[in-house]
Amino acid sequence: MQHRVAAIGGDGIGPEIVAAGREVIDAAGERYGFDIAWTEFDIGAERYLETGELLTEEDIRELSKFSAIYFGAIGDDRVKPGILEKGILLAIRFHFDQFINLRPIKLLDGVATPLANKRPEDIDFVVVRENTEDFYVGIGSRFAGRHEQKTLEVVRDIYNVRFGLDVETDADELAYQIGVVTREGAERAIRYAFDLAVKREKKVTSVDKANVLSDVYGLWRDVFTDVAAGYPDVKTEFNFVDAVTMWFVKNPEWFDVVVTPNMFGDIITDLGAMIQGGLGLAPGGNINPKGTSMFEPIHGSAPKYRGQDVANPLATVWAGSMLLDHLGEHEGAAAVLRAIERSILDGYVTRDMGGARKTSEVGRHLASLVRTV
Amino acid sequence: MQHRVAAIGGDGIGPEIVAAGREVIDAAGERYGFDIAWTEFDIGAERYLETGELLTEEDIRELSKFSAIYFGAIGDDRVKPGILEKGILLAIRFHFDQFINLRPIKLLDGVATPLANKRPEDIDFVVVRENTEDFYVGIGSRFAGRHEQKTLEVVRDIYNVRFGLDVETDADELAYQIGVVTREGAERAIRYAFDLAVKREKKVTSVDKANVLSDVYGLWRDVFTDVAAGYPDVKTEFNFVDAVTMWFVKNPEWFDVVVTPNMFGDIITDLGAMIQGGLGLAPGGNINPKGTSMFEPIHGSAPKYRGQDVANPLATVWAGSMLLDHLGEHEGAAAVLRAIERSILDGYVTRDMGGARKTSEVGRHLASLVRTV
Ligand SMILES: CC(C)[C@H](C(=O)O)[C@@H](O)C(=O)O
Ligand SMILES: CC(C)[C@H](C(=O)O)[C@@H](O)C(=O)O
Repeated sequence: MQHRVAAIGGDGIGPEIVAAGREVIDAAGERYGFDIAWTEFDIGAERYLETGELLTEEDIRELSKFSAIYFGAIGDDRVKPGILEKGILLAIRFHFDQFINLRPIKLLDGVATPLANKRPEDIDFVVVRENTEDFYVGIGSRFAGRHEQKTLEVVRDIYNVRFGLDVETDADELAYQIGVVTREGAERAIRYAFDLAVKREKKVTSVDKANVLSDVYGLWRDVFTDVAAGYPDVKTEFNFVDAVTMWFVKNPEWFDVVVTPNMFGDIITDLGAMIQGGLGLAPGGNINPKGTSMFEPIHGSAPKYRGQDVANPLATVWAGSMLLDHLGEHEGAAAVLRAIERSILDGYVTRDMGGARKTSEVGRHLASLVRTV
Repeated sequence: MQHRVAAIGGDGIGPEIVAAGREVIDAAGERYGFDIAWTEFDIGAERYLETGELLTEEDIRELSKFSAIYFGAIGDDRVKPGILEKGILLAIRFHFDQFINLRPIKLLDGVATPLANKRPEDIDFVVVRENTEDFYVGIGSRFAGRHEQKTLEVVRDIYNVRFGLDVETDADELAYQIGVVTREGAERAIRYAFDLAVKREKKVTSVDKANVLSDVYGLWRDVFTDVAAGYPDVKTEFNFVDAVTMWFVKNPEWFDVVVTPNMFGDIITDLGAMIQGGLGLAPGGNINPKGTSMFEPIHGSAPKYRGQDVANPLATVWAGSMLLDHLGEHEGAAAVLRAIERSILDGYVTRDMGGARKTSEVGRHLASLVRTV
């Protein structure tokens, strides 16, 4: 079986960790009889600084030929915050309608959590983050002036929504931002979460702030209730986002599948990453089950470690395991995760995890483990 | 010296914990020579269920005569989430322009934190949450229908802002929510944070998500940078909200004063409450330095424990200490906090903290401690 996969190393440590991940994935292929044909894409800060290009029409056309993208990281100190994130990472998520952001929160054996008295069996859940709506739609504006009237016209392609907003103000300077939730958008994410829960512990927690942002999250809750009616065997509960940050820290064992709108998903998955041992160990999948999906470590590009062969590749390798699952290579996916666990237990890790190994050494070691583990 | 203070017990355990808090505050007054004239207000779910009234014009007129309100909690299972929160709690915050929500995050001696290896000296910072803008302005709407056109007209009094929003949509059902940040609104909160930092460790961390919600939080960052220029001795840094949830858990010792827009403030202060030992120990002040301020425990009304004399009053008593600080009774405020610490070290606490005492017993004990401690 051959799979074609796009690879975007990106910026900073991105290329090194993706190289390590590819080595491990290829080794899993040798063992389980599949082969990955990799196509590299040069997308990121370097190209942007040279040509001004973020994600081009041609990038999109070419990437759309793949069912999976293996993504490193983007971000560069020479570029203002937001440009690369919105112009590349979020652009890919939105353009390919990757409506699920899937983040396993799982404390592996041998990993230190900052929480007192929590063990691997206590921290093992999945966050399903809606990935195309909410406050990430990028609708907003900013202006100054007394009684100045401005109109914003925005068309959101995905749902064919047009907003025309007139603002008249006495404030010296004002900015606003609009979040959008649609029934279809909420429903497909929530349904994905329930389908996942059916294969796990049959519990879904919805995280919102419907008591204050009642319009968008009121709709979200109603959709959740409607979808839940079709899954009578699945236990459900609502948590407010502020409260859920407490329970992640105090009682992570309560959770099985957590489903949440985009922005709160961004926040609570970083907290989740920390309780499972930190960003060095946190992978994410951006999934469109019928289109082009993307798998990435959730950490950034750490520009200052670029080219030093010191970055921890484990989050990226774990993202590779998720990529294999997505391609239907479940045995390979499981072996990659076992190799990660083995290597942690052996202390064969980078210095951020208390080890003495280089990025490339860990990659090579995992590739050899994956053949036997 | 006499101070007039309004007391709103509210729902559930609210009246019991406020009663305990008042006893302690009164005892501090006996020791330090001030006297509180309390005026009770009957505001909350009971009245709402009987009369449909949330916060009336008369409530507002009467409350505006006080410089401080001592608030218990609101919330009742018979009322849909959002009604009481928005109609009472947020209505008070907005109406009295309580633009600072001040939340000390401090691990007291003898309190267990869920974090491994963290001690009281590691967890001691303050969050300044902007309390009148952002996604809490309550502007949004929800509707269904293909190509249906709706217009929303909203006037925000505080800044004289008028929004007219036309939406035309192909989506079956859609909701949107608008957040607003103004220069004046951001500036007064950020300036408060810097003034506070000058009296503490001289470090201010701004928390936002300017890389994605670039309009509102881009303005926030610019204002932060402008204000910071006037405080050359104060160290500053920007954190994204997702990342800051990690550092609260991993390195709380990094923080001194954290300033943040309303919604992220809501989220990170609950996380802060948990690392300082849980909601039973987390107070908050809603401050308008020139108007009517309000002090409250940040937990809810816990309806199921109502009338059982089991609720932990410490967060409310601590809020009482903040109230005394606000009234200029700094000695009394400090004594109340010392009494709380003494009582924790003696194990004279309610059962949620591992003790065997009733709400009223803890109140009485603290009142007697405050006379000598
Ligand atoms: C880099 C940033 C735009 C991104 C997000 O906010 O989604 C990141 O934090 C993430 O969670 O993948
Ligand atoms: C009850 C709710 C409206 C409130 C808020 O969101 O501000 C609470 O969570 C708080 O933090 O005081």
